[in-house]
Amino acid sequence: MGNVPTTVKHCLSYEQLTQDYPWLKRWLLEEKMADHTDVLRGIQREPHVRYPVLTPNMQGFQDAVAAGATEVAVFGSASETFSKKNINCSIDESMLRFEEVIKAAKERQIPVRGYVSCALGCPLEGHIEPSKVSQVTKRLYDMGCYEISLGDTIGVGTPGSMFKMLQSVMNEVPTSALAVHCHDMYGQALPNILTALQIGVCVVDSAVAGLGGCPYAQGSSGNVSTEDVLYMLHGMGIETGVNLPKVIEAGDFICNALQRETNSRVARAGGRAL
Amino acid sequence: MGNVPTTVKHCLSYEQLTQDYPWLKRWLLEEKMADHTDVLRGIQREPHVRYPVLTPNMQGFQDAVAAGATEVAVFGSASETFSKKNINCSIDESMLRFEEVIKAAKERQIPVRGYVSCALGCPLEGHIEPSKVSQVTKRLYDMGCYEISLGDTIGVGTPGSMFKMLQSVMNEVPTSALAVHCHDMYGQALPNILTALQIGVCVVDSAVAGLGGCPYAQGSSGNVSTEDVLYMLHGMGIETGVNLPKVIEAGDFICNALQRETNSRVARAGGRAL
Repeated sequence: MGNVPTTVKHCLSYEQLTQDYPWLKRWLLEEKMADHTDVLRGIQREPHVRYPVLTPNMQGFQDAVAAGATEVAVFGSASETFSKKNINCSIDESMLRFEEVIKAAKERQIPVRGYVSCALGCPLEGHIEPSKVSQVTKRLYDMGCYEISLGDTIGVGTPGSMFKMLQSVMNEVPTSALAVHCHDMYGQALPNILTALQIGVCVVDSAVAGLGGCPYAQGSSGNVSTEDVLYMLHGMGIETGVNLPKVIEAGDFICNALQRETNSRVARAGGRAL
Repeated sequence: MGNVPTTVKHCLSYEQLTQDYPWLKRWLLEEKMADHTDVLRGIQREPHVRYPVLTPNMQGFQDAVAAGATEVAVFGSASETFSKKNINCSIDESMLRFEEVIKAAKERQIPVRGYVSCALGCPLEGHIEPSKVSQVTKRLYDMGCYEISLGDTIGVGTPGSMFKMLQSVMNEVPTSALAVHCHDMYGQALPNILTALQIGVCVVDSAVAGLGGCPYAQGSSGNVSTEDVLYMLHGMGIETGVNLPKVIEAGDFICNALQRETNSRVARAGGRAL
């Protein structure tokens, strides 16, 4: 999740990677990296790149700060049932925890990004009312999240539901504080992102090679691939500042390392653009 | 290519199928079906469904008519090089052939659909000027094609190039006479279709399970899948009159028969919609 000065954010959590690829966890453990705070200590950081750490509670926050995190993230849900399953507490309880984290982060001038899962549907509850999404988003924004990423966790959304949800959220929170985070389970990620862009959202989460997914959401395939998003944006004349061929290279690297086929159509097609 | 009263047309040629799956041709030959005109004779036709036959020249047209075709189609290209490779003649030569076919079809009151390949790029020439597409489209329209389908044969288009191309074509030909035909090589088919819909085009070609492709265009993967297009359209509140679960069933059937994995994300996800 490099918070580079572009519309594309790369999202792939350490938890997700090690959940999907147990050998990677073993390998990292052998390398003396036990969790994301250790990863943070282990990597060589580039200037101007943010390395946010997911911090579900104060313990996580303190560990992150101790490891030198300069940005943290809290992740809530628009679905009550999913919240209980994913982070083991109700939406209200999660907000209390986040309030504490965000307050502590503010004191240290550490920016906090918020996530809202199930913004276009829930694997457990099904349809999610846009008003539910806007309520949770507003709470995170009012608490002090500088940006809130609205996640279609299981990829069931369409340009229709994306439009309605964003209309509702934009009544409560400035568009400049919103991002979209689309999974591609139903092949709808790109048209959904296009819809969000047309409505004024200009931050898009994505993952190199379309890796990722959510271990708590059955059938959740990966995030939309950074390569395919970039191909679309560049084709629309949008300057992202991201070098597509280099992202494809990075995707080749990680897919080789994970022995996994890329989810990027552009990478599979060889990345050749006209 | 069922010309049903919806925005979605199913396109999969006999030539394509038998090219991809030689055993199918053998099987069909054993069943005494030698080409598409024989297929036309062999199938039980449904009322209100059109069964158009691709007719590159007068011989093809006469065969089609003899077999009882009630709609025919001619296929041109916006790329000179691709035209020579795909149909063995220059664009001008192809237009002369089509003129003859369209004239003969008119006399028999048989509607003719036109196709323009490489509308968003060519595997041989690369970039194709929108003005090239609009010239060829206008010629087909002026000759009497009731509808012209603009094909992104190798799937390199983006909402940006789709928008520019359609703007150019719509200066020459009424929008109501246009269709789009998107391949999904770069994962851009759905955002491109969304763009075309937003601009006013309301006929979309697609193929069950995303089968198809073009044997003469290297790297051309299948057409966009009917299932994924329908999922998007229905999610946008657009009534297509097409039953998605039944299309998914049809896709299962043909994929089983061809021993091929579906290209539809929706079918792979189980088709479950919220």
